[in-house]
Amino acid sequence: MTYCVGLLLKEGMVLLSDTRTNAGLDNISTYRKMFVFETPGERVITIMTAGSLSVTQTAMARMRDIVDDPDSTEATSILKAPTMLRVAEIIGKLLSEVRAEIADKLSMGQGASASLIVAGQRAGGDMRMFLIYPEGNFIEATEDTPFLQIGEHKYGKPILDRVVTPQTSLKDAQKAVLLSMDSTLRSNLSVGMPLDLAVIRKDACALTERRRIEAGDPVFLKMSEAWSHALRDGFSKIEI
Amino acid sequence: MTYCVGLLLKEGMVLLSDTRTNAGLDNISTYRKMFVFETPGERVITIMTAGSLSVTQTAMARMRDIVDDPDSTEATSILKAPTMLRVAEIIGKLLSEVRAEIADKLSMGQGASASLIVAGQRAGGDMRMFLIYPEGNFIEATEDTPFLQIGEHKYGKPILDRVVTPQTSLKDAQKAVLLSMDSTLRSNLSVGMPLDLAVIRKDACALTERRRIEAGDPVFLKMSEAWSHALRDGFSKIEI
Repeated sequence: MTYCVGLLLKEGMVLLSDTRTNAGLDNISTYRKMFVFETPGERVITIMTAGSLSVTQTAMARMRDIVDDPDSTEATSILKAPTMLRVAEIIGKLLSEVRAEIADKLSMGQGASASLIVAGQRAGGDMRMFLIYPEGNFIEATEDTPFLQIGEHKYGKPILDRVVTPQTSLKDAQKAVLLSMDSTLRSNLSVGMPLDLAVIRKDACALTERRRIEAGDPVFLKMSEAWSHALRDGFSKIEI
Repeated sequence: MTYCVGLLLKEGMVLLSDTRTNAGLDNISTYRKMFVFETPGERVITIMTAGSLSVTQTAMARMRDIVDDPDSTEATSILKAPTMLRVAEIIGKLLSEVRAEIADKLSMGQGASASLIVAGQRAGGDMRMFLIYPEGNFIEATEDTPFLQIGEHKYGKPILDRVVTPQTSLKDAQKAVLLSMDSTLRSNLSVGMPLDLAVIRKDACALTERRRIEAGDPVFLKMSEAWSHALRDGFSKIEI
C-alpha cells in the first residue's frame, strides 16, 4: 500500500508521500510516488500515486513522454493545457486508458487499479488540487475539505480532521502531514520510509521546497518522539 | 459499519462498542453490539459483534436459546463449557454455521459476514480474549498485543499503539478505548453513539461495570474536548 496526503491552504500547498511498494508482504521495494512537472514561474504540477505500480509507472512514463514531445498540444500535454481543470482531465483520461489496457491483460479477479492526487497552479490561475479515481473521474479539495488522501488514509485522518483548516500556515501544514504520516507508519507495515515532501507557495508557480526524508532523519525522529510524548502527556492529564 | 475494541490487561479487561448499524447511508439504526453471558462468581463472557446484522443477531439469539435450554451440555453451552478455549470454539462453530446458512439464501456477490470479540474468565482459569473470524477460526490477545479490534479499526489504532500495554490500569484503559472511539466517531460516519462500555476486573468472574454512554453524555463530551485541546496544544508546541 501507500499513503499520500495533500493540503490546499490559503498560503499554498503541502504534499507528502511515502515510498513503500509491496507485492505481498515478502516483496517490499522503494519507489518514488511523487512526480513534478514544472515550467518554473509559469506552472507547477505535482502528482502523487497510489495503487498498482504497473499502472502508475506506465501512466507517469507516458505523461513524461508526452510532455517531452515537442509536437504535443494543449489537448495532450499537461504543461500546455490552458487550465488546471484541463490538466486533471488529461491525467484522468490517461490513467483510465492505462488501467483498461492493463486490466485486459489480466485474468478476472486480478485487479490493477490506481488513484492519484494532482496539485498545481498556472500563472494567473488558482491553486487547485484533485483526487483522480481509477476510472478517470475526480473530486477537488475545497475550503470545507482542504485535504485529500490516497492509499492507507484512515490512520492519519484523525489528526488532520482536528488541526487542518485553510488558514493553517505552511509550516504547521508540514507538521500536520508529517504527524499524519507518523501515525500511519506506526500502525501499518505497508507504508514506509523514506518520505517525499513538497511545498508550493501560492503564486510561486514553482516548487518552493522539495525534500526527501530518509529513515533515521534526526528532525523527523525528534518530531515523532515529541508527538508521542505530547500524546502520552495529554493522555495522562485527561480525567474521566 | 461498527467499531468494537477490547483490552486484555493484568488488572482485567475493558470492552467498548458503538451501536450504529447501517444498510446503506440512508438507513441508519441503533443496535446493541455487546452481549453478556454470566454466572456471577463462576464465569463471565462478553461478546461484541461486527458485520451483517442478520448474521450477528441470529447467532446471538441462538446462543441465548442454547444457554437457556436446561438440556444444553458442556459441548453446546458457553455457560457450561470447561474452558474459555472451548467457549471460543463453540461460538466460532455457531458463527460459521449461521453465516453459511445465510450465505446460501443470498445470490453470488451479496456478502453476509461477521466477526466477534469474545472476552471472559472462568473461576480458576485465566482471563482470555479472542477475535473470531467469519469462518469460525480465531486469534487471541497476548502480552505482546494486548488489544483486539473489529469493524472500523484503523482510525482508533494509533492511540492504542502508543498508550496501551498489559500494565495499563483499568482506569487508563477506559480512557484509552474511549479516546480511540472518539477518533473513530469524528472521522467515520458509520460509527455512532451511544456506546456500551464494560469492565471486568481480574478474577471477579462477573461484570465489574457496565455503562451505556449516550450522545451528549457530559463526561464523554468533556473528555473528548480535553483530548482535542491536548492534541492541538501538543501540536502547537512541536517544532520542526
